[in-house]
Amino acid sequence: MTPVSKFRAFNGALSVHDHDSAVTGTSMRFAVFVPPQAEAGLVPVLWYLSGLTCNWSNVMEKGNLQAAAARHGVIVVAPDTSPRGEDVPDDEAYDLGQGAGFYLTATQAPWSQNFNMDRYITEELPQIILDNFPADMSRQGIFGHSMGGHGALILHLKHPKTYKTCSAFSPIVAPSQVPWGHKAFTAYLGEDRSNWAEYDACALMRKQASQAHILIDQGMADNFLEEQLKPELFEAACAESGQKLTLRRQAGYDHSYYFISTFMDDHIAHHAGALKR
Amino acid sequence: MTPVSKFRAFNGALSVHDHDSAVTGTSMRFAVFVPPQAEAGLVPVLWYLSGLTCNWSNVMEKGNLQAAAARHGVIVVAPDTSPRGEDVPDDEAYDLGQGAGFYLTATQAPWSQNFNMDRYITEELPQIILDNFPADMSRQGIFGHSMGGHGALILHLKHPKTYKTCSAFSPIVAPSQVPWGHKAFTAYLGEDRSNWAEYDACALMRKQASQAHILIDQGMADNFLEEQLKPELFEAACAESGQKLTLRRQAGYDHSYYFISTFMDDHIAHHAGALKR
Repeated sequence: MTPVSKFRAFNGALSVHDHDSAVTGTSMRFAVFVPPQAEAGLVPVLWYLSGLTCNWSNVMEKGNLQAAAARHGVIVVAPDTSPRGEDVPDDEAYDLGQGAGFYLTATQAPWSQNFNMDRYITEELPQIILDNFPADMSRQGIFGHSMGGHGALILHLKHPKTYKTCSAFSPIVAPSQVPWGHKAFTAYLGEDRSNWAEYDACALMRKQASQAHILIDQGMADNFLEEQLKPELFEAACAESGQKLTLRRQAGYDHSYYFISTFMDDHIAHHAGALKR
Repeated sequence: MTPVSKFRAFNGALSVHDHDSAVTGTSMRFAVFVPPQAEAGLVPVLWYLSGLTCNWSNVMEKGNLQAAAARHGVIVVAPDTSPRGEDVPDDEAYDLGQGAGFYLTATQAPWSQNFNMDRYITEELPQIILDNFPADMSRQGIFGHSMGGHGALILHLKHPKTYKTCSAFSPIVAPSQVPWGHKAFTAYLGEDRSNWAEYDACALMRKQASQAHILIDQGMADNFLEEQLKPELFEAACAESGQKLTLRRQAGYDHSYYFISTFMDDHIAHHAGALKR
């Protein structure tokens, strides 16, 4: 783990690190905010997964994150959204390749060698967090935005005992049914749609609800709402499976970090409350 | 005034606008955050002046500003830091020319035609705010960061009845005595140092204190502290003149927006409290 930079914020510490990932075969960069409460003992850990094109910095700079994490006493980890580098496959479009990992294990060439973001986040990075930060790994939650909301929902549903709490800002809830997901899943997973279901939050939800109370905020002035996000599909799947869900439709809000920052404190409070000992 | 973009945040509205400025002879862009309290009547106005290289977006994206302005019920205006454009004089360095207006009226070629940021901010932009936003212009405060902290201090001291309250994050308090100021003042005002004093917060303070209680936060891990900022010079000038000053030396904090965002709520509360009717 190589230190990149470190900042004091809200009486806590934001640090950025590089490390060589065996899972992606690349150097990976991530950021961790440690709140002041960690001086007194281990604190819960929240995983924040970012959306298309983003890296650690979007939420750490624009998300109102440190204020909320310091208020509620949680560590927040912000991984990158894909492997990156000159030797890593890419696509000219913003929604495929570097910056668009979709939190899955790619099976198709040329992506399959590096694009393993689900295993990176669920297996490799947690060990690094455990070894280097005052993290209580028995109290983890996961949340994210857009493509990262998709990541948070599927990783929670696939690993409910690891990520005990879950929330999302304007998530892609049904990638199998929208253009962003069609394109990415076809490239990363191939044409056979039976391989898509394990990365589709609506499909996973229809199989099995979780014990958590999921919180979703969705801006009603979000340009991607109707074509890409379709929260009503997840709402229906949750109703079918008996999942406890609060879906808040926020009038006037768009897809930006102005929206995320507005509701960041609510989300972190939601996780911290449920993870309280 | 031409609308550029508009965002809902913290139940208020952030809007960005272009307009043709007679003072700078260019198109100028600024942002305004209007808090939800403005639905019930006119609210106080704070002017946030940014530092070198910045424009409206730095503080609006990274400053934790909307949260604090919505909590305390104030409008915040974020002007640009200089005129900009292909026809506007510039310098390759980040600390002269476009992005580095230093909140003064330039008297030297080639700068004197466009670089009149003090008159832009004190004369032209207030009329636009008065005409277009629910602003109580009898209750204005001014604050800023670094070069913008310099701007806030000098404009408060020169116009104490207009800007009744003042605060700053890591301000340049004595431009006549530090490299950033030497370079800019020589270029914009010429070699004759007698013309520099009216734009030097320490010099102005030694002439006349204000009725306000000035708040300054300064990070002690700020790389510019010793060479460019020198808050002890302003502290001494305030003591000499009987100015009420709270200078907080914040251990571990640097010059970044992580520092600013940490103390933004304190600053906006400081202004809002003093501007309360």
